[in-house]
Amino acid sequence: MSAAERPLLAITMGDPSGVGPEVVVAALASRRARAAGRALVIGDARVLARAAAFTGKAFAPRVVSNAKEASASRSPVCLLDLRNADAEQILIGQVNAAAGRAAADYIEKAVELARAGEVAAIVTAPINKGALRQAGVSHPGHTEMLAALCGVKRVAMMLVHGSMRVSHVTTHVSLREACEIITQERVLSVIRLTDEALRRMGIAQPRVAVAGLNPHAGEGGLFGDEEIEVIAPAVEVACSEGINATGPLPPDTVFARHRAGEFDAVVAMVHDHGHIAVKTLGFAPASVGRPSAGAKRRRSAALRASGVNLTLGLPIIRTSVDHGTAFDIAGKGLADPTSMVEAIVLAAEMARAR
Amino acid sequence: MSAAERPLLAITMGDPSGVGPEVVVAALASRRARAAGRALVIGDARVLARAAAFTGKAFAPRVVSNAKEASASRSPVCLLDLRNADAEQILIGQVNAAAGRAAADYIEKAVELARAGEVAAIVTAPINKGALRQAGVSHPGHTEMLAALCGVKRVAMMLVHGSMRVSHVTTHVSLREACEIITQERVLSVIRLTDEALRRMGIAQPRVAVAGLNPHAGEGGLFGDEEIEVIAPAVEVACSEGINATGPLPPDTVFARHRAGEFDAVVAMVHDHGHIAVKTLGFAPASVGRPSAGAKRRRSAALRASGVNLTLGLPIIRTSVDHGTAFDIAGKGLADPTSMVEAIVLAAEMARAR
Repeated sequence: MSAAERPLLAITMGDPSGVGPEVVVAALASRRARAAGRALVIGDARVLARAAAFTGKAFAPRVVSNAKEASASRSPVCLLDLRNADAEQILIGQVNAAAGRAAADYIEKAVELARAGEVAAIVTAPINKGALRQAGVSHPGHTEMLAALCGVKRVAMMLVHGSMRVSHVTTHVSLREACEIITQERVLSVIRLTDEALRRMGIAQPRVAVAGLNPHAGEGGLFGDEEIEVIAPAVEVACSEGINATGPLPPDTVFARHRAGEFDAVVAMVHDHGHIAVKTLGFAPASVGRPSAGAKRRRSAALRASGVNLTLGLPIIRTSVDHGTAFDIAGKGLADPTSMVEAIVLAAEMARAR
Repeated sequence: MSAAERPLLAITMGDPSGVGPEVVVAALASRRARAAGRALVIGDARVLARAAAFTGKAFAPRVVSNAKEASASRSPVCLLDLRNADAEQILIGQVNAAAGRAAADYIEKAVELARAGEVAAIVTAPINKGALRQAGVSHPGHTEMLAALCGVKRVAMMLVHGSMRVSHVTTHVSLREACEIITQERVLSVIRLTDEALRRMGIAQPRVAVAGLNPHAGEGGLFGDEEIEVIAPAVEVACSEGINATGPLPPDTVFARHRAGEFDAVVAMVHDHGHIAVKTLGFAPASVGRPSAGAKRRRSAALRASGVNLTLGLPIIRTSVDHGTAFDIAGKGLADPTSMVEAIVLAAEMARAR
């Protein structure tokens, strides 16, 4: 692929105290990420230089003053240095207000560039909710901030891992509250967003499976009536709109059927139905049955999952790593960049398909 | 292994209208099942002969009049013919009161033999809840019937697949009801039963992971308080009793950690947390990404899962296939016997470890 065919992606550095800078530097050293897109990192040069030292990877971006310069550059990695995070002041692995403010700045800049069409998509490294709060940022997390910056209300999280794609009707609420807020309108909205995302991924005739909420999808009302009262009617409306939606299907087998190729995505009702399916598969089989490697293996296992988050419902393409700031291993060079590499690849693929 | 070392297992034929007779016949034709244990099938010779014709497998058991005769026999497969299911009268793939009654008879006989010590364990083929109801059997399913026959109140379902072992605090209730009935006492009881089962499987120092109920195991109370109020105190009591229990852990990563060898089993709070983890993995990788094989592949995929159910809390060893009567494919020779083979192997292993 020529440089011109590789889309320019804004990549936020994430919270300077966490593993974000490390996974950005390490991911951009990989052939797979560089082949997929050109990077405009939005961050701080001092923190990125420190991260390069932690990871042992070379990081020599071309520093630019705006996105147009990056777009015209032949360099595969450019840096927009916001000079807002002093590596001397911001300690690794600690919740810090300045770090939270800096992380929010990167996101705001990335959204601005994406909405102006100066970058083709944005890819985000992890932020820390506590640091955001200390910095006085009112949004509890990435998704809410992105929705507000883009002026949209209804967004949904899709988790992507290989050919597995799972979107969620509810996410960060208790299971009791999830049961309360699953409405026909909300289910229908996520079915529509899922169908639209699959089309943007280049799937011409998406097949969307809709999971039930209860065991056996309620077993005809015996184990709960949400399938009959809420989910089935939403599937019916989606079908009447021309969406190839099937369900509600038993949650325990729908992901296996998706994995076997029967559907292009699953709409899951709750966070852990979808996340358990994707993350249990996410571990490489090579890591199975080797309990002897001990503590170091276990610590890095926390980041070994190579899933990607995709936010549905935004007017821009946005992917994200599927892990947090991991303060416990930040600064140790242990963070696995696989999820960041895959987030870059998916964002580039979707940008090209547009 | 000599014949004397292979335990005698009672294997119920299940509902005569479903795939039970087929998977019993096909499983007992496999080298793996025969090497594990000797079989005393409890069923009807006429229905089993029909099943042998469907599957194309030879089925020539030694017909015995009681378990002692089977125990003394050198034949690897014996049959206790209860002559209660007329293959001419009981149609394949249909809910039938006579079939429900016959299926219940097999279970009652198997439990009687196991409690008398005449068989080492029981392995059950699937029954149909509708047929049981039509037959006037008051128990809604296998587990309830077994608990009543054995005079115990607290049982739990463990799903076993390879090295994955997941027990469940709640199973066949709505997600809303599950949230209501998860008490400290119930969680503690399933932790204890899980620890005990692992010891019976020959694991001297079991490591039990306890999953949370809510996303991120509640994120410190932000997404629900069951972890703080109910699950953590149960784990604490279990630890004080000498059980190596860890938790509550985030549901979306605990199964991957178990798969990677960090724990010997996971205690899941709800049916689908555990079932999604095991069943999503249960599909052989060979079946992934081959959507072209079409309808026949999909139909048989319904039974391709090779998980095994193990009932914890009974005074006898009881394993079961992890699928239903599958009326839609019964009589077609499509039913995959893998789950029945694995149920036989696990029962035999546990019987030998006793």
